[in-house]
Amino acid sequence: VPHNLNDVATPGLLLDLHQFDRNIERLGTHLRKLSPHLKLRPHMKTLKSVELGRRLTDALGTQAITVSTLAEAEAYAKAGYRDILYAVGLAPAKLGRVARLLGEGVDCQVVTDNVATAKAIGAFASKQGVKVAVLIEIDCDGHRAGVKPDDSDQLVAIAEVLGPVAELRGVMTHGGGSYGLADPEALKLAADQEADSVRRAATILREAGFAAPVTSVGSSPTALADCDRSGITELRAGVFPFFDLVMAGIGVCLMDEIALSVVTTVIGHQADKGWILCDAGWMALSRDRSTQGQRVDYAYGQVCDAAGVPFPDLVVHSTNQEHGIIALREGARGSLPDIPVGTQLRILPNHACATAAQHAGYNVMRGDTDPIEWVPRFGGW
Amino acid sequence: VPHNLNDVATPGLLLDLHQFDRNIERLGTHLRKLSPHLKLRPHMKTLKSVELGRRLTDALGTQAITVSTLAEAEAYAKAGYRDILYAVGLAPAKLGRVARLLGEGVDCQVVTDNVATAKAIGAFASKQGVKVAVLIEIDCDGHRAGVKPDDSDQLVAIAEVLGPVAELRGVMTHGGGSYGLADPEALKLAADQEADSVRRAATILREAGFAAPVTSVGSSPTALADCDRSGITELRAGVFPFFDLVMAGIGVCLMDEIALSVVTTVIGHQADKGWILCDAGWMALSRDRSTQGQRVDYAYGQVCDAAGVPFPDLVVHSTNQEHGIIALREGARGSLPDIPVGTQLRILPNHACATAAQHAGYNVMRGDTDPIEWVPRFGGW
Repeated sequence: VPHNLNDVATPGLLLDLHQFDRNIERLGTHLRKLSPHLKLRPHMKTLKSVELGRRLTDALGTQAITVSTLAEAEAYAKAGYRDILYAVGLAPAKLGRVARLLGEGVDCQVVTDNVATAKAIGAFASKQGVKVAVLIEIDCDGHRAGVKPDDSDQLVAIAEVLGPVAELRGVMTHGGGSYGLADPEALKLAADQEADSVRRAATILREAGFAAPVTSVGSSPTALADCDRSGITELRAGVFPFFDLVMAGIGVCLMDEIALSVVTTVIGHQADKGWILCDAGWMALSRDRSTQGQRVDYAYGQVCDAAGVPFPDLVVHSTNQEHGIIALREGARGSLPDIPVGTQLRILPNHACATAAQHAGYNVMRGDTDPIEWVPRFGGW
Repeated sequence: VPHNLNDVATPGLLLDLHQFDRNIERLGTHLRKLSPHLKLRPHMKTLKSVELGRRLTDALGTQAITVSTLAEAEAYAKAGYRDILYAVGLAPAKLGRVARLLGEGVDCQVVTDNVATAKAIGAFASKQGVKVAVLIEIDCDGHRAGVKPDDSDQLVAIAEVLGPVAELRGVMTHGGGSYGLADPEALKLAADQEADSVRRAATILREAGFAAPVTSVGSSPTALADCDRSGITELRAGVFPFFDLVMAGIGVCLMDEIALSVVTTVIGHQADKGWILCDAGWMALSRDRSTQGQRVDYAYGQVCDAAGVPFPDLVVHSTNQEHGIIALREGARGSLPDIPVGTQLRILPNHACATAAQHAGYNVMRGDTDPIEWVPRFGGW
């Protein structure tokens, strides 16, 4: 067994640090070539680790970050980050925590897509005398939140109601619809649509007299696509340092570029059913089944040997809380490999964000002989 | 808003302590009446909290517990529990941790269903001179792990290979197949089948000369069923203190008996789509979709007002990491309620074990005016 994997208590989250570095370098190279003017603002929600976050931003040469919770904002701020976009529509009750970050010198930018929240932000800013920077969320593809890019009434109403103390920093969108795609041409169109939506919305706001200097886009699939990003000022992406089976299904990485896996141990067999039982259930893998809608459905994950080499068509076909049931995919031509009790395996996850969130930290593997290092994660809200 | 719910940072896990107590009392009363001889060994994997665990075992009048990880065993042992069944097939590499618990005076019983693991346990016990108590897992309904109840060759082979130092404590099974049922008669049959399987297996072992004094059964649905439990010595169940939508779908609780929910805040609307957006995504709710196979599919959860009263047919129909998209169930006759930005809601979970696992602790609500109390959870393996 390579990498001192026997030191990993199973089930345990494993990070291949060399692959992590290569994945970051790939995005950095792609964007330096294609859009050298872009400010990179990686999404730190996947990592939730100060140490890995620092490694990511250092490699990309940026200090700007995106977060999905105020708990992340607070943890990264404590680690020294000062330029943080909280990229989930703000609940007005969270303004007190935003103000505390602003008071500590953190440029904590918030997001909304509606007049009610904008009004609450404006009133809070006036009352407390704090300059809250706001990006209006734009809906580029109908998949979630945001103002339609051409809805000038709504855009201007939000901008106006923010009032004189809050600052309209600009517009942002997330091309989450790209997660449903699977070919480079469609991904390029999604990236174009994402960029176009914020350009149009920013133009409306600027013509109405608001500076709105920031136009922010991003998702890992669109970030890796070819796209004209003139008029775009910054780019966000999150899962690309790890990648996962969903990203492989979309076509933005190969299976052997996935840097994250769950180490598990075989605990039994049900030979008559063709099952191998292991100690990674949904508690370790997450309940995420996002490859279900893709061309290849990996059920709860692709099974690899301890060195990370996939067994063809072998997946975690179902899970209980602490049991994984490994079996051949339906229609597989091979036969079930003989894997004795006690054998360590690695499971590639459907969705790195969901699987990583089930664990308190990473077992970080630097090389075949280096000791495995424990790097903690944080969670919560 | 009752219960000082405004003190709960959203998304946050909320526990109604009165309902928790009532749910425990219900099982206790049922079993005292039906099977007064049973040793109760509640499964603590759902709670993962020393404080709530103590409340549960005190109410049931037992000090015996079941756990699903050694991390739980260690945490509960530290809190004083001395009779612990680790009810997931043992990976031989974990024997060192089991031995440490035994050395601290904890009767940490382990489970296996195969000769390879039994051999490893026997060898470890002999070498270290520690008396490891083992239950053979029995497969009562084909849903997961275990030896078939009538497979005398396998049962005796496991018992024999354990050797003279390890102790064959008995047999255990989990009627997990009951989760797929939905009427009382079928649940009674499942409970009978669960009990019958360990009685048969124990008889085989005893006739072969092994004492095997313990016959352990359990699952929340079968525990609440009517069943003849003569010859059964102990019963395990886990989710019943909380209940959830899956249990309501099986018919073992009513929706208003669910003690656990996720408090969330409305952050926006997409009026043209009939969507209300909230700050509880799959990170707060989990990716569990276990009601998908039931008569009523609650998608990612049933939406209630802040007082816990369900909105008819209103569910979290899809999720992103930190966004919940609330909408009417397909085919619903009512219209979307008008719920403004900033409103707090409660989401009833599909599966309490999965949803609770997404959170670092409980916001415990004792009464309408008492302050909300924070009770931490632990996790990991």
